[in-house]
Amino acid sequence: MAHPTFTSPVADFLAELHRKFAAISDGKLADYIPELTKANPDWFGICLVTTDGHVYEVGDSRVPFTIQSISKPFVYGLALEDNTRQHVLTRAGVEPTGDAFNSISLDPETGRPRNPMINAGAISTTGMIAGKSLTTRWERIMEMFSLFAGRKLAIDDAVYRSEAETGHRNRAIGHLLRNFNILTEPPDAIVDLYFRQCSVAVTARDLGVMAATLANAGMNPLTGDRALRGEYVESVLGVMGTCGMYDFAGEWLYKVGIPAKSGVAGGIVAVLPGQLGIGLYSPLLDDHGNSIRGIRVCEELSRAFNLHLFNAPEAVGSAIRSHYTAAEYNSKRVRTEAETELLRQHGHRVHIYELQGNLSFIRCERVVRDIVANADAIDVLILDRRRVVALPEPSCRMLCELVKSFAVRGCPVLFTHNTPGGALRRTMKAKLGDRFEELFRCFDDDDLALEWSEDRIIASHGGNLEPVATQPADYEICAGLSAADIAVITPLLESRTAAAGERIIGIGEAARELFIIIRGRVSARLPVEDGPSRRLATFTGGMAFGELALIDGAPRSAEITADTDVELHVLSVENFERLKDVYPQIKIAILKNLTLLICRKLRKANRELIVRDQ
Amino acid sequence: MAHPTFTSPVADFLAELHRKFAAISDGKLADYIPELTKANPDWFGICLVTTDGHVYEVGDSRVPFTIQSISKPFVYGLALEDNTRQHVLTRAGVEPTGDAFNSISLDPETGRPRNPMINAGAISTTGMIAGKSLTTRWERIMEMFSLFAGRKLAIDDAVYRSEAETGHRNRAIGHLLRNFNILTEPPDAIVDLYFRQCSVAVTARDLGVMAATLANAGMNPLTGDRALRGEYVESVLGVMGTCGMYDFAGEWLYKVGIPAKSGVAGGIVAVLPGQLGIGLYSPLLDDHGNSIRGIRVCEELSRAFNLHLFNAPEAVGSAIRSHYTAAEYNSKRVRTEAETELLRQHGHRVHIYELQGNLSFIRCERVVRDIVANADAIDVLILDRRRVVALPEPSCRMLCELVKSFAVRGCPVLFTHNTPGGALRRTMKAKLGDRFEELFRCFDDDDLALEWSEDRIIASHGGNLEPVATQPADYEICAGLSAADIAVITPLLESRTAAAGERIIGIGEAARELFIIIRGRVSARLPVEDGPSRRLATFTGGMAFGELALIDGAPRSAEITADTDVELHVLSVENFERLKDVYPQIKIAILKNLTLLICRKLRKANRELIVRDQ
Repeated sequence: MAHPTFTSPVADFLAELHRKFAAISDGKLADYIPELTKANPDWFGICLVTTDGHVYEVGDSRVPFTIQSISKPFVYGLALEDNTRQHVLTRAGVEPTGDAFNSISLDPETGRPRNPMINAGAISTTGMIAGKSLTTRWERIMEMFSLFAGRKLAIDDAVYRSEAETGHRNRAIGHLLRNFNILTEPPDAIVDLYFRQCSVAVTARDLGVMAATLANAGMNPLTGDRALRGEYVESVLGVMGTCGMYDFAGEWLYKVGIPAKSGVAGGIVAVLPGQLGIGLYSPLLDDHGNSIRGIRVCEELSRAFNLHLFNAPEAVGSAIRSHYTAAEYNSKRVRTEAETELLRQHGHRVHIYELQGNLSFIRCERVVRDIVANADAIDVLILDRRRVVALPEPSCRMLCELVKSFAVRGCPVLFTHNTPGGALRRTMKAKLGDRFEELFRCFDDDDLALEWSEDRIIASHGGNLEPVATQPADYEICAGLSAADIAVITPLLESRTAAAGERIIGIGEAARELFIIIRGRVSARLPVEDGPSRRLATFTGGMAFGELALIDGAPRSAEITADTDVELHVLSVENFERLKDVYPQIKIAILKNLTLLICRKLRKANRELIVRDQ
Repeated sequence: MAHPTFTSPVADFLAELHRKFAAISDGKLADYIPELTKANPDWFGICLVTTDGHVYEVGDSRVPFTIQSISKPFVYGLALEDNTRQHVLTRAGVEPTGDAFNSISLDPETGRPRNPMINAGAISTTGMIAGKSLTTRWERIMEMFSLFAGRKLAIDDAVYRSEAETGHRNRAIGHLLRNFNILTEPPDAIVDLYFRQCSVAVTARDLGVMAATLANAGMNPLTGDRALRGEYVESVLGVMGTCGMYDFAGEWLYKVGIPAKSGVAGGIVAVLPGQLGIGLYSPLLDDHGNSIRGIRVCEELSRAFNLHLFNAPEAVGSAIRSHYTAAEYNSKRVRTEAETELLRQHGHRVHIYELQGNLSFIRCERVVRDIVANADAIDVLILDRRRVVALPEPSCRMLCELVKSFAVRGCPVLFTHNTPGGALRRTMKAKLGDRFEELFRCFDDDDLALEWSEDRIIASHGGNLEPVATQPADYEICAGLSAADIAVITPLLESRTAAAGERIIGIGEAARELFIIIRGRVSARLPVEDGPSRRLATFTGGMAFGELALIDGAPRSAEITADTDVELHVLSVENFERLKDVYPQIKIAILKNLTLLICRKLRKANRELIVRDQ
């Protein structure tokens, strides 16, 4: 339960706005549709919905009213889905008129309405909705509205009848459009469809969700349902931007800077692409036919929260979350001291870029520019897209060009956390052709990509990636011991084997043994809920694991499994303790070696923490 | 030197666009100013400039031509700086006309031009530029242009004379404006100033930089100079957005979706706020008076790179870089095992939010919403703004409301990496009043804020933050030793003191001693170039440091300094070695204790790496 003092500052601000503007009682109710005069002038609802689906609402946000002209952009989107763009554009232009909402504004020669936000253009648009019968077409329009609102909407019959009885001007427009062959069917039926679409009952909350659906590229953020194909959203917002607020459109874009559409019943939708949608209701209108309180709320919201679309004081921050090399940060594969030194010397030519956020053009451009500037210093490029939330197709193409440029000089580009079916793979497949399999290298995570890159460095310097420790003198824990010391230890070691995949140590088991690898590879892992286990370390020939058994004997804290068939030597705690009385110096030497190995791990971890903290 | 195969994919794409559209030879040169007919129809330059100052240019990007109508939005910005907004708006509206560029479009009653992008509105705008004489006013206009372009611009005299000789229509407009008292001075002088501003010579590169300056909130990204106060940029872009492309403005916003302005000499500027500016030049015009190749380049760029301003498929990614608690990640203060256990139990009520990028309204709203949702689980809130690139004032207000809500329940909010003179401090000071000092708590970094929060937990559970180890039995390295063992060790320990601030160990020194703290506090630090040193660890009474001296004796790798006056016990390597022959069991016990302490550090580092890798 939330503590009473914890309200959201955004909700508080909206409540304050509501209080402030509820006091305005200027303006008048729309009267050209008689039924609209029945609205209560006090009704006032505000709703703000984010593109991640959070709804803020204040006041009469659930009072129903008719959508009226706000239906126009939504039906325009449906017309774009149902027709070629050419067809739509020849039947309604996209130029603002600067004239009032009911101006006829047809092109004198072609009869084409100037834009789809004036009644003439909207009626033409309604005529473009596909369907075998008027009923089918009406059902499609209603279904579209309902998808946008996230609930089943219905018509307000009283307003529809009132509008149908008095809509002579719109009928006249219908006949004019028929005269110019912009409408090719009996116009009365289309105008009737138009009256219906205007009479759909919505609430401020519905409008907020509908606006957020447009802001969210056509996908309803509450239901996850697609209401409009994403490619048409910019067109719908484009006509709203220049023609949405009647002859107030220029001033609106100038002052408020958020594409919007108003209706004479007192509703407004405003859409901030990628960010939020606003739904407003207050039936008192100004001379332009726009809701007075609604406009004031939008003006104040835009100013108070810097929402003007043209006001982008700074780019949103880098898409490069971090950038480091394999000289600073390494895989979980445990390396010998010599290998560690090799990586410290040559690892700076393996570059890892952790990317984040939306890789839009401008953000991807900066990433690519940074990589191109560093290109001469890079032998292997690792691009981590784990935290990338969007990778649009144009950016996929840029990355593909990058892969090709690196391929020319024989430098691999490794992608990690790539999604199997995404746009990146599609683009790479299309652009790389025959070389797709060879050049588009994907790894599950950075750890594996780093290990692959480190192995490449070590192998190119003659290192042995599968070392075998044929005698105890090769064991890291025996460093510095004399032949005589080793002769003492050898009989204390017990031979054991494990097959690939076999579990050697389980979590929580008693720690009674230290293990040394003669040949093969084992990994320590931590199980993770709902996911692949996390690799903590991978050991190879000559290395020891499970050493804490000799120190504190606490239960095992990780699972250890054989990655390959493995030959092991095992030193039990009992045998180790036996050394104490007779050969304390050997025990001290082994303890020092173990401590040094742990210190090496600590130094690696500390070095990597510094990289991570940067 | 860049490898020849490494060109930027963006530069490649622009070169391809240039090749493709250079083939277009439709359209014709402007002829209403005779001098403009002398342009070479083949000239074609493209320039794209990012808001971080990177310039891409192709073709004839350095060929000069006259700015013509592209001067209008820039002079409009200057007029906004020189006058009240009310004054500017009564002398030029902001509604699109849908008419051609030279339409007169004055309000029949007031004489107010419809907008400042048509000639009438632009001449009215020029009349609003402040200055005692016409010369001063002209110099101010030129200075403003030069600030935008980042170089000293000059007038093209031939074009100016040609324009002045033939500009009868514009003179007529001047007199009409005088008739309506929109101009209050002799109109010919103002119209002459207008001819001059139109005759300024620029290149496509200049236009690119000018556009990027608008995109960068009025600050030239190449020179760092401010060309226009940021608050007016959205107004300039607002009129460009609805009125910038003559009677093609609606279609432009629909198709291209980038505020733009064209000139009859063949130039175009296009501005993507916060992202980039585009400058184009090709003198062949279409019937609207817009550069044909220029428009095609913009259309293709917008489509290829998803630049349409209304096309924002997804929010840009979270402003929360990471979120963890003091149960998972701790300060560099080394804690005893009991303290570590306390923090593991109670640290989950200290929440650290690492923020990043531009904390615009919508991104800050999500941060605040997340915090409000978690509020009941939070006793101390740490907000790290190290990677925040912009924190606009509306978001500062939201954070201030958050601080107040937390204060009501007695929960502190700690800000780290706060800049001394920023908007956050200003807003907090204004809104918190008397309680500013108490409630606006700032720490240099997360490490110190975490330490403060941990200390609070430990103190509230009766822990001792300044422990004193009065006898060797209290030393961590002596854990488990018998009184007899301790009696053996005690004479081997040498007493030493250090005053607050004194250096105890220097980097690179030979490691011959282990130190144990009796009372006081010391810290290990790594010097950092151009910055405060990085704290690695802080130790208190009973703890040991410099222990590697006893293990491998490698030179010291960090600097250790007394934070307070300190009393120490010192165990030299020689004394430790002396134990080996006579009391090997004591040596083994101490080695095991040291190893356990190092293991504890390793576990902490590994736990913290997991948090960092999330």
